[in-house]
Amino acid sequence: MEYTQETLSSFDRIIMGIDPGTNVMGYGLLGIRNKKPVPIAMGVIQLNKFESHYLRLKRIYDRVLMLTEQYLPDEMAIEAPFFGKNVQSMLKLGRAQGVAMAAALSRDVPITEYEPRKIKMAITGNGAASKEQVQEMLKRILNLRQEDFLPQLDASDALAAALCHHYESSRPQIEKGCRSWKEFINKNPGRVI
Amino acid sequence: MEYTQETLSSFDRIIMGIDPGTNVMGYGLLGIRNKKPVPIAMGVIQLNKFESHYLRLKRIYDRVLMLTEQYLPDEMAIEAPFFGKNVQSMLKLGRAQGVAMAAALSRDVPITEYEPRKIKMAITGNGAASKEQVQEMLKRILNLRQEDFLPQLDASDALAAALCHHYESSRPQIEKGCRSWKEFINKNPGRVI
Repeated sequence: MEYTQETLSSFDRIIMGIDPGTNVMGYGLLGIRNKKPVPIAMGVIQLNKFESHYLRLKRIYDRVLMLTEQYLPDEMAIEAPFFGKNVQSMLKLGRAQGVAMAAALSRDVPITEYEPRKIKMAITGNGAASKEQVQEMLKRILNLRQEDFLPQLDASDALAAALCHHYESSRPQIEKGCRSWKEFINKNPGRVI
Repeated sequence: MEYTQETLSSFDRIIMGIDPGTNVMGYGLLGIRNKKPVPIAMGVIQLNKFESHYLRLKRIYDRVLMLTEQYLPDEMAIEAPFFGKNVQSMLKLGRAQGVAMAAALSRDVPITEYEPRKIKMAITGNGAASKEQVQEMLKRILNLRQEDFLPQLDASDALAAALCHHYESSRPQIEKGCRSWKEFINKNPGRVI
């Protein structure tokens, strides 16, 4: 998967998926052409080698900024757990998310966040699916050849976040914001014929 | 307090203090000349007016970047509580800290963080001092006139973080890293005459 900026402009829309962690950060770029998702790039950023917490944060920031400038995404989808083990790990996770978000926001890329459960549900139909199941399903949906696919689960998680965002943003309005036809009609009086 | 870049270069060192929060962010710039701290600027960034969480984060990032480019700080000192009420608020605080850090890191400004207790102790001698006591002590130490001083407590907290960093980084090495003369001598054999 190698794309020049010319090829990139052939997509209607590009979504950058990010799965930020404090040890490894995954990313996945998804292009949408005629409503069909096409994988552009995926990978991980190893953060373990950096001893300092700040060097890790800088690395995340620099890399997300680089990806933003290289692939010119229209949107960012971020995997964001809302519940964690303890306040310490949540503070660290929040910082990792914060620097990734800062890079996107500095280039005015809008952000949508998805809980891991929601992403798993969107891809596999099962909110409790394993990372391996998500990866297997992604391969089938995106018709990826084994040799094109990076085995890192954090990379496929990030690409899954981008695909989940594609599904969510292309769902008709009624499913997104309203719970019933009645609510839909109340919210959209102009659409009643 | 108004400084041109020429005046700024008369300082040996400039420290930017940041007190990031999700509703209000405080900042304070401190110049060091002949080992004496001189206040350069202080203020707050109101975040309440932004409804979206992302707009708040972008505002923090933009403002810290602006301060970094305007005052060219050599270092950043950040007030960072390590213990919070719950995982939700710690995740949000982590993100606010993350975007502020990203702005500094993008300009290669090194970061040091201090717990609120540590800052209060450094300024007032009492780790449990109130924000008002910290502000009162700051006025005396920095010889600030009432009219120069912004009343916001988040601004004085940020300036206090910068002053705390000045104290900490000008303490002799023995006090910083070693608990006893024995340890100091073991760590610094070359300094034994």
